[in-house]
Amino acid sequence: MKNLAILGSTGSIGESTFDIATRFSDRFSVLALAAGGFRLERLAEQVRACGAKLVAVHQEDQAERLRSLLDDQVEVCWGTEGLVRVAGAPGVDLVISAIVGAAGLIPTYTALLEGRDVAVANKETLVVAGELVIEAARKTGARVLPVDSEHSALFQLLQGRKSEEIRSLILTASGGPFRGWKTDKLENVAAREALVHPNWSMGPKITVDSATLMNKGLEVIEAHWLFGVPSHRIRVTIHPQSVVHSIVEFVDGSMMAQLGVADMRVPISYALGYPERLPMEESKLDLWALKALTFEPPDREAFPCLDLAYRAIEGGGNAPAVLSGANEVAVEAFLAGQIRFLQIAEAVAAALDAHDPRPIDSIHTALEVDRWARRFTWDWVARWGRRN
Amino acid sequence: MKNLAILGSTGSIGESTFDIATRFSDRFSVLALAAGGFRLERLAEQVRACGAKLVAVHQEDQAERLRSLLDDQVEVCWGTEGLVRVAGAPGVDLVISAIVGAAGLIPTYTALLEGRDVAVANKETLVVAGELVIEAARKTGARVLPVDSEHSALFQLLQGRKSEEIRSLILTASGGPFRGWKTDKLENVAAREALVHPNWSMGPKITVDSATLMNKGLEVIEAHWLFGVPSHRIRVTIHPQSVVHSIVEFVDGSMMAQLGVADMRVPISYALGYPERLPMEESKLDLWALKALTFEPPDREAFPCLDLAYRAIEGGGNAPAVLSGANEVAVEAFLAGQIRFLQIAEAVAAALDAHDPRPIDSIHTALEVDRWARRFTWDWVARWGRRN
Repeated sequence: MKNLAILGSTGSIGESTFDIATRFSDRFSVLALAAGGFRLERLAEQVRACGAKLVAVHQEDQAERLRSLLDDQVEVCWGTEGLVRVAGAPGVDLVISAIVGAAGLIPTYTALLEGRDVAVANKETLVVAGELVIEAARKTGARVLPVDSEHSALFQLLQGRKSEEIRSLILTASGGPFRGWKTDKLENVAAREALVHPNWSMGPKITVDSATLMNKGLEVIEAHWLFGVPSHRIRVTIHPQSVVHSIVEFVDGSMMAQLGVADMRVPISYALGYPERLPMEESKLDLWALKALTFEPPDREAFPCLDLAYRAIEGGGNAPAVLSGANEVAVEAFLAGQIRFLQIAEAVAAALDAHDPRPIDSIHTALEVDRWARRFTWDWVARWGRRN
Repeated sequence: MKNLAILGSTGSIGESTFDIATRFSDRFSVLALAAGGFRLERLAEQVRACGAKLVAVHQEDQAERLRSLLDDQVEVCWGTEGLVRVAGAPGVDLVISAIVGAAGLIPTYTALLEGRDVAVANKETLVVAGELVIEAARKTGARVLPVDSEHSALFQLLQGRKSEEIRSLILTASGGPFRGWKTDKLENVAAREALVHPNWSMGPKITVDSATLMNKGLEVIEAHWLFGVPSHRIRVTIHPQSVVHSIVEFVDGSMMAQLGVADMRVPISYALGYPERLPMEESKLDLWALKALTFEPPDREAFPCLDLAYRAIEGGGNAPAVLSGANEVAVEAFLAGQIRFLQIAEAVAAALDAHDPRPIDSIHTALEVDRWARRFTWDWVARWGRRN
């Protein structure tokens, strides 16, 4: 029996995790849950269904309301402390870290320091504090298990391989809604156009990140930390069908690709079951129903965010955290109509130009640089955005 | 240093093996060679280049001629005994079995019984005597390493995987020159049409086998023995681009595919280097230069040889040996204009119908049933072929 704590249990990844844990109840037991608090009724339902004895929400008033929905034996806590307690609940073997944003970083880090395996669906964790997080895991022997489909694919492909065999890791990108567009056409892209992803249905932030290719850039950074491969050996290919989730190239010139349906439950189930693979009958890929699979180089000129990510990882230290924080603000400003599509990259580049390069030697430093990057970018937006 | 014996050193696989062994002379030493004897000058050249002290040819008179080309310190032997001696030369770690036809079976079997690893490029070995050969390897702990691209791909994909993870193995087939043709159009196919393979340049027998899909059927049988997977979990897909060499399907519905250029040196280098992978700079696959990759079901009605192979492996015992022997004769008769294209399958089916089902409990039985199938098929050709 594997005991789980799910951070972000009422979000999309969290619900899928909960679904799989419930379906394979002979293998998994959910001991503790945490959620943002927007869907308290659903959270209460989950607590009752799995019999968890500890649950955390974002704010104190949400905690009070949740208490009234549950019986007295369930302990309800809140805030960062709540997250850390849920992630560290006694008996937990595996933490699923699926809270969006910087809030996910602290409980992930503490869980790893305590030697618990963490399935990381939270992007910020590795982008902002990759070195710290991986070092914590190395020290305690805890595993960092990737959840998103590309890194899960690489993780699966690399099982049982030796590092001397590997020439490069290749992340696939759908290319987003603007694949094939040049800079002049991208000039006047509207937010609603950027919110239509061709293959996956996701939240607005990550959908815009797919449109700018920043999402793939962040994934290059994550892959660097997860697999210990230098960024010049991590490549990106456009693959509009999103069937191949990643590719490993070997020193003899051959490649291995991982293929699957566009269903997050498959990589989630792999992280939950690891090192075993769970039988997932409904997620079968039908080779004969596939469109023709194609690969093409990314257009690095029209989509400069990709190279900004390489620049950040090569810069090292706090540069990736600057990239991530600045991008988050820039995307928000774009969605609010405050800056143009191409200004997302400009804002991020400005933040990278302006930042003070330092190592990330603590969570404190990581959070501080994140805050700096956000403040810098809001200022940039105020100065260079449309309203001026 | 890995010491090699190459059986069939002047053929296409043998030359590639020799080339790689010479290139990586810090890792490999060729101790002994055997060849059919058609290219004695070349064989002598190889012996001088690698300094082998033992060499075998097919016939006694070839042995005498070869002796005159070499210095006295090289021992030249001939026939089956010669092959067995080369495969069993003192100090040999890995035998590359690349002799075409039933002649390859005996030295492969004896090498495995003596505990030597064998890289098997000879199809008959596993099709005719798979159970015997695998059992011999199991007893002595010797490895059977596949050389052809599809099985090498599966072998690579399965490294480090547990059998519980695997739902099915999927062999890819180009579909050959007649892909998409129906029975009525196949009725009057000429030998020269069947000899044009779209992607690989190979000998006439295997090229015709690709056109009938018998080649893929034989590969299903080989995969069954190599990987211990029942035939109903080994599937075949048409993949006209021949870039994906094989696919493994997992129980969670995801798949892994091995991709590579159409260059036999890559799988050969994998078998030679195993468990290490050799750097092969010139065999790099260029993702961005690929045609779109497609997959489609094989047409089992127009190409009945595929189902005949499944029938043989399900029948078990000597049925695959009957299939193989009958097919070899039928292809020869087709190439000689004695039977029509569609009669290849008819001849093989007739042999399967007529054979006496028995286990293959010795090499003797294997060779006997092979002889029976050939005789039966020549009789069938004489009776039902064009000249009657």
